[in-house]
Amino acid sequence: MTNRELLEDSVGLRYDFEEAFHLMAVTVEKHLASAPPVIRNYTAHLAKSTGKFIRAYGLMACSMDEEDKVPADAVTLASAVELLHLATLVHDDVIDDADTRRGIETLQKRFGKKAAVICGDYLLSLALKLASSIPQKNQYEALDMPNYLCRICMGELRQEINNGNLDLSVYRYLSIIKGKTAALFEASFHGGAMLSTKDERKLRMYRKAGNDVGMIFQLMDDCIDYEMEETEAKKNVRSDYEEGVVTLPLIHAMNQDESFSGQVKNGLVSAKELYTKVLEAGGTAYTKAVAGRYYGKASNTIGNLGLSEAKKARIMTVVDKSYYGIKK
Amino acid sequence: MTNRELLEDSVGLRYDFEEAFHLMAVTVEKHLASAPPVIRNYTAHLAKSTGKFIRAYGLMACSMDEEDKVPADAVTLASAVELLHLATLVHDDVIDDADTRRGIETLQKRFGKKAAVICGDYLLSLALKLASSIPQKNQYEALDMPNYLCRICMGELRQEINNGNLDLSVYRYLSIIKGKTAALFEASFHGGAMLSTKDERKLRMYRKAGNDVGMIFQLMDDCIDYEMEETEAKKNVRSDYEEGVVTLPLIHAMNQDESFSGQVKNGLVSAKELYTKVLEAGGTAYTKAVAGRYYGKASNTIGNLGLSEAKKARIMTVVDKSYYGIKK
Repeated sequence: MTNRELLEDSVGLRYDFEEAFHLMAVTVEKHLASAPPVIRNYTAHLAKSTGKFIRAYGLMACSMDEEDKVPADAVTLASAVELLHLATLVHDDVIDDADTRRGIETLQKRFGKKAAVICGDYLLSLALKLASSIPQKNQYEALDMPNYLCRICMGELRQEINNGNLDLSVYRYLSIIKGKTAALFEASFHGGAMLSTKDERKLRMYRKAGNDVGMIFQLMDDCIDYEMEETEAKKNVRSDYEEGVVTLPLIHAMNQDESFSGQVKNGLVSAKELYTKVLEAGGTAYTKAVAGRYYGKASNTIGNLGLSEAKKARIMTVVDKSYYGIKK
Repeated sequence: MTNRELLEDSVGLRYDFEEAFHLMAVTVEKHLASAPPVIRNYTAHLAKSTGKFIRAYGLMACSMDEEDKVPADAVTLASAVELLHLATLVHDDVIDDADTRRGIETLQKRFGKKAAVICGDYLLSLALKLASSIPQKNQYEALDMPNYLCRICMGELRQEINNGNLDLSVYRYLSIIKGKTAALFEASFHGGAMLSTKDERKLRMYRKAGNDVGMIFQLMDDCIDYEMEETEAKKNVRSDYEEGVVTLPLIHAMNQDESFSGQVKNGLVSAKELYTKVLEAGGTAYTKAVAGRYYGKASNTIGNLGLSEAKKARIMTVVDKSYYGIKK
């Protein structure tokens, strides 16, 4: 084989899904474990608490070709998306002053806020560097990761600005999570899809479905917060409400019951009462119904893409996991 | 003119240097003033305290063509570099808990650390988005901004890790500022040069010169900190030393005088005494001599590039400004 053929071969490498998923997880851990010495202490700590890689799963599912194989570039992009997600979590923990995440002490708690801010910046640039390393440069440009990153930052900022805002409307709440959470799911679906199709209309459908999945994921996550609070007798888990994050279950409960709304606004409701009341007023039931509408839209879009059964099943796994839950 | 010709014309737009510099400043301000509503409050505040644009100046100087014109892409890249620089300042202020910068209240003081962390992330992604928007995509990839960003983050981290480390060696100190400050100057020279030459050997020379200029800039900045402290009777300016940042003037003074070194390590020296002693022991004189060596190397390299007098003069302006000082 000539060098050129070897290169083409490596560019063209394709994997079975399970194999690709394993490779992605290994790649993420490798990047965290083999960071430059100065930062390895921090990144190695983060490697202990990587998540379920749902965004990477979605990206690789959307990238499957006619033979249901995942191209090597999808593994690279999926690793980048997970590192980007990790970067946002590190900064989130600084912002929220969080002590633990996924049962592990946060970076900011263990090493201080300064190290955490910089380490988040490092992961962010590492993710973009990794994403831009795929051999098909025009693909990378089409994806436009920095643009998605802008949207995510703005979602975060709008959430921060609306911290403690008990007048937040359903509409504005949905538009916040569209940036904060759904943009990265959309980027994942987009990144995978552009490796499997050139059809602009289909690309838009994939992106739309990715966005819907992100909405489902965040809405269900918001419900978990209320349901956990209720059942787990609030150990030292700090809840959304106690951090001033106003989510759909509470918004709906307040919309349903004016006197409750007045009491909350006047600070007359304890956290414990609030959780009970939100469940009673159907706050989480309503939120799940909204998520259900996104579920319907997403599966409809995915059904219209004309996919193989295997590919459709992989993508629907992401939709189902977002809806029926795995914790982040 | 056909659309295609118009496009080529716009891609090929070239400006006189002064015109380009003005356009760059306007572009930066436009991006800050016209950010999406949710973030505009913050970015508009930052627009009040933009600096002297020395990195942008360097980038555009290096981009000058045979007719001493600056290509439109250089204006875009230069704006991106300044926004990236601004992003790092916003995060620096969070890390250092700084109240003012360039006489203006910092973002973190005015709007809180949360907003500042996210706003820094936003500016960072905006900068990368802008840089990747230049029509000559292969140029952007060659520049590899995310890679420079990684280097900057690691420099910052190493500085943070060495906060309060009174055993920091000259060698390690220089390698820290090589990342922290010199990497962005190198990126600026690189970004400009790649628009004016394809010669790999010359590109390496430009990068080398950019790195040297960054070293000069930081070394002289470190001197200013000690000399200002001495003369300005320490108003409410928090100095490097009081923030635990150990720089070359102090390192040299401690290397010169063992008993002084012992006293500093045992916390027996007041800030005021320390400044006087560092000056007496020739700490800043030595630092300026080191900067002088970089000045020699940089002007030598620039002299060997075979440039027009006009281009050489523009680039030397950046070297001189770094050496003889303008405040950031």
